[in-house]
Amino acid sequence: MSMSLDGFITAPDDTRENPLGVGGERLHAWLRDLGETDAKVLDDMIRSVGAVVMGRHSYDVCEGDGGWGDGGPVGKTPCFVLTHLPPDPADVVAPDVFTFVTDGIESAIARAKAAAGSGDVGVHGATAARQALNAGLLDEIHIMLVPVLLGAGKRLFDHVGGPVELRRTWSVASPDVTHLRFEVVKGSEGRGHVRAAKGA
Amino acid sequence: MSMSLDGFITAPDDTRENPLGVGGERLHAWLRDLGETDAKVLDDMIRSVGAVVMGRHSYDVCEGDGGWGDGGPVGKTPCFVLTHLPPDPADVVAPDVFTFVTDGIESAIARAKAAAGSGDVGVHGATAARQALNAGLLDEIHIMLVPVLLGAGKRLFDHVGGPVELRRTWSVASPDVTHLRFEVVKGSEGRGHVRAAKGA
Repeated sequence: MSMSLDGFITAPDDTRENPLGVGGERLHAWLRDLGETDAKVLDDMIRSVGAVVMGRHSYDVCEGDGGWGDGGPVGKTPCFVLTHLPPDPADVVAPDVFTFVTDGIESAIARAKAAAGSGDVGVHGATAARQALNAGLLDEIHIMLVPVLLGAGKRLFDHVGGPVELRRTWSVASPDVTHLRFEVVKGSEGRGHVRAAKGA
Repeated sequence: MSMSLDGFITAPDDTRENPLGVGGERLHAWLRDLGETDAKVLDDMIRSVGAVVMGRHSYDVCEGDGGWGDGGPVGKTPCFVLTHLPPDPADVVAPDVFTFVTDGIESAIARAKAAAGSGDVGVHGATAARQALNAGLLDEIHIMLVPVLLGAGKRLFDHVGGPVELRRTWSVASPDVTHLRFEVVKGSEGRGHVRAAKGA
């Protein structure tokens, strides 16, 4: 996810008209005129993703005309949308891409894993990421840290259950964005305590 | 400032007993057994700082015994503490270090600049940093990004007034922490709009 230094992945008022919120397109400015480093990172990510899990809000603000068109966030890659109430099938612009999952994050990730084959399952948006993290099902966090303070909007990490230990596995800095990858240290999620990296 | 990936510079309940909050010592784990890279970054920072500006809360939880002892956060480097009501001089453990400023952030920074000579003025803590930023007086942001999600505590960037454009000027990744430096793009602070990096 593209995240501002103050932790936001959208500006305020994210709607179909402004999927990243009002002013939030700043978060995707680095995608507009890709440098060599950023292009390679993005290409690697797209190649590696075999399926996507997302929340209903991400689907609602981005699907169809003006958003993802007849695909999802990664073209025709299968997407599993967490929802309590699936939309009318007639309203789904890309029924070949989207599957609606009503029985929770574990089910959505299991189905996405099956669809992804040897590919990774990408988790898109704050709600799905938090649910996956708190369920112990998130393996890695990929952040594109954007050099801006948005001041308001939707935070990627809000209401995370207790301290979660990470290990930074990779980083690359381009002029427009800092790419950071973290491994989630398994067993540290949602325990309500902190494990210090140096053994405390 | 040492900041978790979810933006916290303390865990909850930061008091004199736990200046970084309960569990917040994780944020300073990288300081306990400094690697070569981290030691150099820290040394450069300490050498460059000629004076410090901080909020009253930072002073209250860290001054004296069990905290900074007879110094401040950077030894005997002069510190200017923003406060509405200065403490009784008899209660100040290090009167040679601390000066209490009651007339606002501009005054505190002006006095710190005078004391710093050719050195930098370091701004310590969330409140002082936010005030300096919103007053257009913050030139750089130095972050030690710690690979942990704390889930709760005090955020470094909260209630920042409007979007502020940054430029990442430097980054170094050590195994324990990612050092990031950003220049604040002057004129972008507190305007309530976003300037896109690529000219939008």
